[in-house]
Amino acid sequence: MSGTLYGIGVGPGDPELITLKALRLLQAAPVIAWPAPPEGESLARKIAAPHITHNPKEIAIRMPLEVTQFPDRGVYDQAAIEIGAHLRAGQDVVALCEGDPFFYGSFMYLYDRVVDHHPVVVVPGVSSLMAAAAASGSPLASRNDMLSIIPAPLPEAALSAAINGADSAAIIKVGRHLGKVRRVLHELGLIGNAQYVEHATMPHESTRRLAEITEDAAPYFSMILVHRRGTALR
Amino acid sequence: MSGTLYGIGVGPGDPELITLKALRLLQAAPVIAWPAPPEGESLARKIAAPHITHNPKEIAIRMPLEVTQFPDRGVYDQAAIEIGAHLRAGQDVVALCEGDPFFYGSFMYLYDRVVDHHPVVVVPGVSSLMAAAAASGSPLASRNDMLSIIPAPLPEAALSAAINGADSAAIIKVGRHLGKVRRVLHELGLIGNAQYVEHATMPHESTRRLAEITEDAAPYFSMILVHRRGTALR
Repeated sequence: MSGTLYGIGVGPGDPELITLKALRLLQAAPVIAWPAPPEGESLARKIAAPHITHNPKEIAIRMPLEVTQFPDRGVYDQAAIEIGAHLRAGQDVVALCEGDPFFYGSFMYLYDRVVDHHPVVVVPGVSSLMAAAAASGSPLASRNDMLSIIPAPLPEAALSAAINGADSAAIIKVGRHLGKVRRVLHELGLIGNAQYVEHATMPHESTRRLAEITEDAAPYFSMILVHRRGTALR
Repeated sequence: MSGTLYGIGVGPGDPELITLKALRLLQAAPVIAWPAPPEGESLARKIAAPHITHNPKEIAIRMPLEVTQFPDRGVYDQAAIEIGAHLRAGQDVVALCEGDPFFYGSFMYLYDRVVDHHPVVVVPGVSSLMAAAAASGSPLASRNDMLSIIPAPLPEAALSAAINGADSAAIIKVGRHLGKVRRVLHELGLIGNAQYVEHATMPHESTRRLAEITEDAAPYFSMILVHRRGTALR
């Protein structure tokens, strides 16, 4: 009988923001898999680390951090083969996902390769989107607000149109696009409404008004929240 | 010394999708507060029920279920007075929120009335958005997709423009607007891409292709997910 692949959200950074369900599956898993950059530490593995005390078999899926084009198929093909062998042997495999598995996560590429051959269960997690809002002290959206999640790497005109069409915007993947985002928000007259959030729920969490930031680059795990009315509360 | 008001997300429905942090705060709270309809059961209270074993003082905040206009200020004014009395007496108060507190949640109105007078901490939770995606088996968005959360009560033209401007759309608060949403998606040629999700992560969870649904009304806790490319995977 086949094992099950579980894609579990481990939350945005604080290890205490994992769910009871994800924790139960993680701590029972004979095999865990996690995404990581080509060299060095996996953030998903680091978030889950305090909870991993049973010495499971571990599979690293190493890929470029900032996947803006189609991801390297070979990395996922290889991971699916390795994970598939455990599933065929009847072992469950738990794949760790930063935040939520289906919200811009790389887990979907593994999911796509396994779901036609083995049982797969996705366990939703706390997303960086909700973590950033909590950190900023600003509700994301209320009542009939349209809320758009907008990747900062988009071309300037598309970015501007997307922000302009929404009541509330969460601009993600800011990184080296910080200068462009600030310029667009300035042109739209929204710079004064924008909050910048870095490393939400992590020890080095930081929140500032975007207007106070002069740098042109930000960490990958940063987000800009902006509400057309200044707040969802009115 | 003042107590702290904690707004905790209890997740989308499955009691096991609460976070460790929310559980810890809930189980230590001398006072809990929860939103409820004018009569009957509170969904947030029901989700948290298996975890409430210590007999806290409970405060019900009763208000209309479907708040599309400004909420009844009196209800929140009264709740803030009652909760404020506990906080001034040095008691922490934990407010239960379905899903995430700052994602279209009513907690924000309580937050607004308390935050200038007492410490308030928002604990993000698993949102119905991520729960619906997991239930549907369809990733919400990938790479540079723009994802828009769109309330179904919007006028038909606004709904159409919002869906048409996004790569991926999550249409929330479907309820009696199901017929209108289906008509808009049909006109945009996207009906074949739309998934309907009801009561995600609850015992009566149900997922269907929207094209197979003929009813003109849906439960309040339903969502429609649609991706322009049919999937975020390609």
